[in-house]
Amino acid sequence: MKSVDVCLSPELLHLYELEGKIVVVVDILRATSCMTTALAHGIQSITPVAALEDCKALQQQGYIAAAERNGEMAAGFDLGNSPFGYMDKTLEGKKVAMTTTNGTLAITRSSAAAQIIIGSFLNISAVANYLLDEDNDIIILCAGWKGKVNLEDTLFAGALFHVLKESHTHACDAPLMAESLYLQAWENPLKFLESSSHVQRLKRLGIEKDIDFCLQNDIYDVVPVLRGKELVLADKRREN
Amino acid sequence: MKSVDVCLSPELLHLYELEGKIVVVVDILRATSCMTTALAHGIQSITPVAALEDCKALQQQGYIAAAERNGEMAAGFDLGNSPFGYMDKTLEGKKVAMTTTNGTLAITRSSAAAQIIIGSFLNISAVANYLLDEDNDIIILCAGWKGKVNLEDTLFAGALFHVLKESHTHACDAPLMAESLYLQAWENPLKFLESSSHVQRLKRLGIEKDIDFCLQNDIYDVVPVLRGKELVLADKRREN
Repeated sequence: MKSVDVCLSPELLHLYELEGKIVVVVDILRATSCMTTALAHGIQSITPVAALEDCKALQQQGYIAAAERNGEMAAGFDLGNSPFGYMDKTLEGKKVAMTTTNGTLAITRSSAAAQIIIGSFLNISAVANYLLDEDNDIIILCAGWKGKVNLEDTLFAGALFHVLKESHTHACDAPLMAESLYLQAWENPLKFLESSSHVQRLKRLGIEKDIDFCLQNDIYDVVPVLRGKELVLADKRREN
Repeated sequence: MKSVDVCLSPELLHLYELEGKIVVVVDILRATSCMTTALAHGIQSITPVAALEDCKALQQQGYIAAAERNGEMAAGFDLGNSPFGYMDKTLEGKKVAMTTTNGTLAITRSSAAAQIIIGSFLNISAVANYLLDEDNDIIILCAGWKGKVNLEDTLFAGALFHVLKESHTHACDAPLMAESLYLQAWENPLKFLESSSHVQRLKRLGIEKDIDFCLQNDIYDVVPVLRGKELVLADKRREN
């Protein structure tokens, strides 16, 4: 039986064996929600980079450059971290370079994995179906907030584990903890997240609209996967 | 308003500011349950040490030496990690040196804190009352299992935060996550923990009796505190 594990913060990632695993990177508010939205809306690829300078360098090579720090768009870049920014027809077919406070770091730290894919509530069923078709063990990696755990990413991990647990075992206690949160929250995730530090932080920035959007299930039937240094759409799954 | 934070693993402790804080170290199965039991039963002091060699050295100086690795008593020591081992009349007034897989490491890593105290379900109300009397912000540090988070320590953190939240704010999302677990589990913690990896591990070692004991609330009205290198009983609180 395949296993699912949950890593609640990139700061714990060194405790997990990544080789041969599929890592599902999760940063609900808002990096992986943006990545999912971007590829669903026809952006050709997203190159995640950890540092602002690397993002800037790719901008100079012609990429659309997206950069967020502490919830806001960094100065001198083309896009921030709102999913609505990626629904722009003029971006279709373009290559995007992206750096965010937490999400892109989680991706760059996972390079030892067999595969890296991107999860969000927006594509949760597509991600679950993708994983059910693969033979690898799974690690759901929550991006958290500057190394600390957060509610919204953990909630997603619990929701995904809840779907997978019929066919997968849990590798340690974190999936059980995450599922417990999900079972308490699923009827009204926004209400559950009201007191979360990140939701409070984003509300101060006036982006409730982004939060509402990112908490919707299954808006997009796409799975972003890392190929080389670029996130692109996974091939359509083979017909069964 | 004072704040409570929860650190779900010693591997995340570098993200927390310890100066001026009271750290409550938690290793329910079984280090902090043993420490509480030992001091309640008249053991004079417990010197937590991270390494087996250090424990051995103190044994040679006349300490009773307690050592656990991977759930079992290490060879050549006097005591293991079962609370029942500390209910021995012949140990009254003795000094104990103790090393365990997770719990003692959590203590030794917290040395920058203003105070370090020991929490377990066995003394949860005594700990809560102690904290309510103090002016410091609080960090509940879960010992976890070899760096990973675990259910039982997180559950305790949630139970303690639940009591403190009337008078304390939460500093980040981890207290909310822990409380959510507690609210799901409190009616029957043992049932909730059945699938936890550590409970399974201990059951394989045949120590269900220890688990049942460690999940009881308020058996002892004592608070172990670190003074210098020794855990001793806190002075009786001043009368109000």
